[in-house]
Amino acid sequence: MFKKILIANRGEIALRVIRTCREMGIQTVAVYSTADRESLHVRFADEAVCIGPPASRQSYLNIPNIISAAEITNADAIHPGYGFLSENAEFSRICADYGIKFIGATAEQINFMGDKATAKATMRAAGVPVIPGSEGLLDSVEQGKELAKGIGYPVIVKATAGGGGRGMRIIKEESEFQKAWDDAKMESGAAFGNDGLYLEKFVEEPRHIEIQVVGDQYGKVCHLSERDCSIQRRHQKLVEETPSPVVTPELRERMGQAAIKGASAINYEGAGTIEFLVDKYGEFYFMEMNTRIQVEHPITEEVTNFDLIKEQIKVAAGEPISGQNYTPQRYAMECRINAEDPANGFRPSPGKITQLHFPGGHGVRIDSHVYAGYTIPPNYDSMIAKIIVSGQSREEVMTRMKRALQECVIEGIKTTIPFHIRLMDDPGFKSGIFTTKYLESFDFGGL
Amino acid sequence: MFKKILIANRGEIALRVIRTCREMGIQTVAVYSTADRESLHVRFADEAVCIGPPASRQSYLNIPNIISAAEITNADAIHPGYGFLSENAEFSRICADYGIKFIGATAEQINFMGDKATAKATMRAAGVPVIPGSEGLLDSVEQGKELAKGIGYPVIVKATAGGGGRGMRIIKEESEFQKAWDDAKMESGAAFGNDGLYLEKFVEEPRHIEIQVVGDQYGKVCHLSERDCSIQRRHQKLVEETPSPVVTPELRERMGQAAIKGASAINYEGAGTIEFLVDKYGEFYFMEMNTRIQVEHPITEEVTNFDLIKEQIKVAAGEPISGQNYTPQRYAMECRINAEDPANGFRPSPGKITQLHFPGGHGVRIDSHVYAGYTIPPNYDSMIAKIIVSGQSREEVMTRMKRALQECVIEGIKTTIPFHIRLMDDPGFKSGIFTTKYLESFDFGGL
Repeated sequence: MFKKILIANRGEIALRVIRTCREMGIQTVAVYSTADRESLHVRFADEAVCIGPPASRQSYLNIPNIISAAEITNADAIHPGYGFLSENAEFSRICADYGIKFIGATAEQINFMGDKATAKATMRAAGVPVIPGSEGLLDSVEQGKELAKGIGYPVIVKATAGGGGRGMRIIKEESEFQKAWDDAKMESGAAFGNDGLYLEKFVEEPRHIEIQVVGDQYGKVCHLSERDCSIQRRHQKLVEETPSPVVTPELRERMGQAAIKGASAINYEGAGTIEFLVDKYGEFYFMEMNTRIQVEHPITEEVTNFDLIKEQIKVAAGEPISGQNYTPQRYAMECRINAEDPANGFRPSPGKITQLHFPGGHGVRIDSHVYAGYTIPPNYDSMIAKIIVSGQSREEVMTRMKRALQECVIEGIKTTIPFHIRLMDDPGFKSGIFTTKYLESFDFGGL
Repeated sequence: MFKKILIANRGEIALRVIRTCREMGIQTVAVYSTADRESLHVRFADEAVCIGPPASRQSYLNIPNIISAAEITNADAIHPGYGFLSENAEFSRICADYGIKFIGATAEQINFMGDKATAKATMRAAGVPVIPGSEGLLDSVEQGKELAKGIGYPVIVKATAGGGGRGMRIIKEESEFQKAWDDAKMESGAAFGNDGLYLEKFVEEPRHIEIQVVGDQYGKVCHLSERDCSIQRRHQKLVEETPSPVVTPELRERMGQAAIKGASAINYEGAGTIEFLVDKYGEFYFMEMNTRIQVEHPITEEVTNFDLIKEQIKVAAGEPISGQNYTPQRYAMECRINAEDPANGFRPSPGKITQLHFPGGHGVRIDSHVYAGYTIPPNYDSMIAKIIVSGQSREEVMTRMKRALQECVIEGIKTTIPFHIRLMDDPGFKSGIFTTKYLESFDFGGL
């Protein structure tokens, strides 16, 4: 087992990793930017090394400084958390070169899954359902129409260089094709300087449902069932839950087996997540694989009792997994508490937390790096806490979450708590029937 | 279901009850003494009524004031928590007279179990093992010797008016009988003005293991397995865990069935606990029944997923239970954090909490009514928080508990945290093999 792990991250996930290391008797090294001197991850680690100024590029993304910190402190492994360098193939390779175990995917696996076209082709070959569409770019409107005929409408054309919804058009029938094509081409050319388009089946009323997997160094992969992350705002997840209100045991089994096939196809080692879109017909399609721990991993921990960080560390150290799949024993939900003002377009609200009181009691877990008197720096993402609630039913979880949110006192800044409280009372959310577009028509007024 | 519940208690248990009421959509009324104006249970309740000055007798034990508060606020039920009026038969009867549902045992059940001799006789009749001994007081040394011969040495003679270890003597063989008898008679006469003695078999290397039961109004009783509360100092529990390191599935089944028999014998309704002593031979003996929720109830909640306060409220409102017994799915442990100085004989350390930071993360639950800036009044018991940890094994729970304790920051007062940290590293505690006397030889030095 590792003697000392450097955590190449900050905030709640750095603290999260330190907690498990402590429980495993592993020494920890925190790294921090000058903006994070007062952060709890620095205080709770056994050692701490400053790696640069506030700008991420010069600190948390600064590979030479992080490698130096690991060398100086004699760390034998690096946990990258999520974001920052967690899916950086070069960093994974450099760690390997330096004889430091990267607790995450290999450079090869990261590359495989980082390139969307390669990932899709690999998954298709492994028998994982992928969204039907063009292989690469379309040459012409005619080719697109031909393809769409085979796949069936609705379809969507998307800019290869796109993102954030720009350069994409939904096409409901063939007569709309030419205009959608022209519009998407013009928009993507203007926005990205690249007007290449590809085509996909348009997934109707999609839900974002992902499967957690863990693989070991001996070729075994197991799944820990799903997380439903359909409650998103501008592709940012805000609330996650497990089990999904729409996943039946039969669908869980099929999705779990597909995820295992996909991960096995690249000999995946460590904790990973395969994200799927599930349509209104119960069909699911591979979106992408995240080769790292996810923000929302705690809900899986609460329903399976597994400490996923411990599992990551164990498989990285060469321990085998049992290979058994895990089905949820309870219900769990996570609300991301961000330092943002939900009444003003979720505008970031950094600053000093003057008063802080987190909720407690049965079924309530708090993962947070902030404390009373802490000043949230404006340099990083705005998440300040995760409230994770578990219970015997989805209804119990929602009522418990509302109670926990109401108990939470965070003064000095604005937070997303009022939004979450409203969501817990929202009939659409309570019904369990919603898509990834649900928040587009949500009333954020007067929060 | 009840519309409004008055909580006739303070501190963490008042807050605990409020939390569940909120989750159930039930309005809450807090009562408070003038010393508790700033307490969280007052802040989080829907309504709050001051019931008197700091002295418990004039506030939390003041039945007329509490009944008035319930009448004024139109509460249809009263939850008494633990301690104070929770096992007061008169209070239970008065609530019934006023048409207010007492969420606890009836006056009759409380009386049955409050009188030790009656409780023992009832349990014996129901087939629950009780410690063999004299029926009532001994008339003479000769009668005692005769009884001891039948039961087998070691035996113990105890003052009927006794408590706190005074007026009792262990007798290992007949030749010691006369002296022990004389000593115990003299001591109890001097201490209590009553020198009546009774005799019991002396339980060797006893562990305190209790069974949680829940009964409904339709005669069904189920058990939720055991809690091991052997870690005590001067009969005060400090650490509780479940499952017990020494309870086998077979013993759990036998103890569980005995507890059900005992509770059924008095048609027990609500949540209750039957406390047993378990000796080194795996034999168990009824000690007493607590007709209320216990401080340590959360560890049962964490391993069974049941909210015991919710169960109490449900059965009080007339809902039936399933009648199924529950076996632990996980391991859980509770450390009682008291405002006491463990380096100085656990001397109370009331005062102002200047800084406060509770631990979080996977498997950590906090039940507490204190916050940064809160002043602990000297009038009540010194418990300020319960840290409850759960995990997949006893070992995982102990390492997690140590991590959580180390993460806890409570400044301005002394607490029992240093003791708990030492206990988590203690080989005897880690072995799982210890008795209720374990702390008598524990090294508290230098904490």
